[in-house]
Amino acid sequence: MSQGVAVLGCTGSIGESTLNVLARHPDRFNAVALTAFSSEDDLTAKAAASGAKFVGLVEGSAQWEAGGNGSVERSVGAKCLEEAATHPDVDIVVNAVVGAAGLRSTLAALHAGKRVALANKETLVMAGDLVDSAAKAGGGELVPVDSEHSGVLQCLNGKNPQDISRLILTASGGPFRTWNKDDVYNATVEQALDHPTWQMGRKITVDSASLVNKALEVIEAHFLFGLPYESIEVVVHPQSIIHAFAEFVDGSILAQMGYPSMELPILYSLTYPHRIEDSGVVRFDPATAGDLTFEAVRHDTFPAFELGIAAGKTGGTAPAVFNAANEVGVQAFLDGKIRFGKIAEVIRTSLEKHDVTEAIDLEVVLAADSWARRAAEEACS
Amino acid sequence: MSQGVAVLGCTGSIGESTLNVLARHPDRFNAVALTAFSSEDDLTAKAAASGAKFVGLVEGSAQWEAGGNGSVERSVGAKCLEEAATHPDVDIVVNAVVGAAGLRSTLAALHAGKRVALANKETLVMAGDLVDSAAKAGGGELVPVDSEHSGVLQCLNGKNPQDISRLILTASGGPFRTWNKDDVYNATVEQALDHPTWQMGRKITVDSASLVNKALEVIEAHFLFGLPYESIEVVVHPQSIIHAFAEFVDGSILAQMGYPSMELPILYSLTYPHRIEDSGVVRFDPATAGDLTFEAVRHDTFPAFELGIAAGKTGGTAPAVFNAANEVGVQAFLDGKIRFGKIAEVIRTSLEKHDVTEAIDLEVVLAADSWARRAAEEACS
Repeated sequence: MSQGVAVLGCTGSIGESTLNVLARHPDRFNAVALTAFSSEDDLTAKAAASGAKFVGLVEGSAQWEAGGNGSVERSVGAKCLEEAATHPDVDIVVNAVVGAAGLRSTLAALHAGKRVALANKETLVMAGDLVDSAAKAGGGELVPVDSEHSGVLQCLNGKNPQDISRLILTASGGPFRTWNKDDVYNATVEQALDHPTWQMGRKITVDSASLVNKALEVIEAHFLFGLPYESIEVVVHPQSIIHAFAEFVDGSILAQMGYPSMELPILYSLTYPHRIEDSGVVRFDPATAGDLTFEAVRHDTFPAFELGIAAGKTGGTAPAVFNAANEVGVQAFLDGKIRFGKIAEVIRTSLEKHDVTEAIDLEVVLAADSWARRAAEEACS
Repeated sequence: MSQGVAVLGCTGSIGESTLNVLARHPDRFNAVALTAFSSEDDLTAKAAASGAKFVGLVEGSAQWEAGGNGSVERSVGAKCLEEAATHPDVDIVVNAVVGAAGLRSTLAALHAGKRVALANKETLVMAGDLVDSAAKAGGGELVPVDSEHSGVLQCLNGKNPQDISRLILTASGGPFRTWNKDDVYNATVEQALDHPTWQMGRKITVDSASLVNKALEVIEAHFLFGLPYESIEVVVHPQSIIHAFAEFVDGSILAQMGYPSMELPILYSLTYPHRIEDSGVVRFDPATAGDLTFEAVRHDTFPAFELGIAAGKTGGTAPAVFNAANEVGVQAFLDGKIRFGKIAEVIRTSLEKHDVTEAIDLEVVLAADSWARRAAEEACS
């Protein structure tokens, strides 16, 4: 029985990898619904190639919306994400939307009882408790796509959750791993986008350079695996071959590893808790893989990391503010308005000004998100 | 409910580590029966310290046997191993007897429905199929103590066996990892006993230096996990931190790791498939653990390794001959009668002369073992 898949953000890096994976397993999965932000032609081509019956553009023209043929439904506007996520023929929603825009569709899919393969970590960072509630209420299920969280899930699957004592997520360290503090502060956009091991979109690549991405991942891990922040650590591992470690109560460690490729965690998010044969992953050969090295995070050089962990520990609306302020800061950096090191300052200023409240519902979270965007815009200028 | 444990070979390295583990968990485990080869005083002291009610010496005096007090039963002779292994108060038999001498007690324990925590890999190498049959007939169960096999078991526990595509056992490479072929051939006993990462008994330390130990482990893994030899690989990993890798059909890899210590795999063999908190294992810290490096096995320098794999693939009585010839060769080397490199030649000569038959019962296996010992003695002189 083939499973229907929606790919939200299908023209990005994760979206394209997902379509590659689906194309290799036509007997198992079929693309039902695809969405993109604004790339009309790319989306139309991907829909034709994959046989999707629903396509949505967040920012699309009425002309495009009217231009389909009878066999493919077209939709324009932010609502298309929820339409794709709750499409009756969809079993699994791969949510690869960038940033806070992915939250509503995740909640809608979980309420509709779908599996959400989550590449949009902002969803959990902003509203981890709401996501849990939506999954419980609707019977949906959340499976991570991030390589680190997929690694943790693979280590823990089949084990007794009570036996877990600690998680360690790895970080490549990004392009500035060996740079001194001042050079990192003044790094250019081009330098920040030159990631050593992972080919990814612009926003997440900048987040990797600042280690904000790793702070978001720690918060994501907290919600996904239900462990306190004190039991989730990060270690820099420049080769990006070990993705995560899980420690058990007797001191034993399991690690998940493989050459850097998103197609493996994407496939696992679709097949979990099972696995299927796949020819798309280059088999790991330790004897030729080179040395595996590890370093501590340099907190003084990458101050945004600790800000994120602190926001996670504070809880409530603080992680949403951390996330929103970072999104604004990253965009301002990419637009040439602020220096790289200023991103962390924008985050810090926004968090300091924010009155944290409990994240009791979506409105509270979105209000904190909006408030933080304004505060961060102000801090950027 | 406390479980009764027999420790066969309690005065050796694994035996002492086992007693340490038992002493840390008096609420879970109690030492019921202890055996040793010939160390009367050490055995008597360990029995007193652990509270064991049965003690056996393979080579002991009638005087010692008669010298106990009423509360501790004493037994002398090879039969003591089976007596300890089938003692009615014993639930788990930790078999740390060195070499072929451990076979009968493993079979007896499995026939009696006990769990055998197996540190005596020769048992499986000589008679893997017989061990399987004994476990099935008696309801016993085999759990590995070797760190590599414990690592595999930890990776696979809770997973679907059909999802496993490949195992990779790590080898420290031993003291001669970087030596040239001629120097290895002429190495002294002192040099062979100077193992870089593991503190072990003399026989297994020499086996580690020749990589015979790793060939025995591949055969052991073949029987324990039911994979063909083509799917079991070995990689040299000098730090002995990653103990084993398991690859799944989708290309993902899990690895089990930890600082070199036998107490963790011993504890796991007792608690499997569960885990319990334990303070005896130093917690792994990747940031301070140093680099992890990997190399291919140098087959030309360590020819006994391939002889063992070939014997495993041949099957029948060949692995028993490989094992027995090696035991004779190692003893001759330790006694100063042959050079280190001659051990492999003794094995090769014995295997070449042997007419392989199916290992249909214990008599056939023990006859092949005896034949190989004579052939190897001849090849040593």
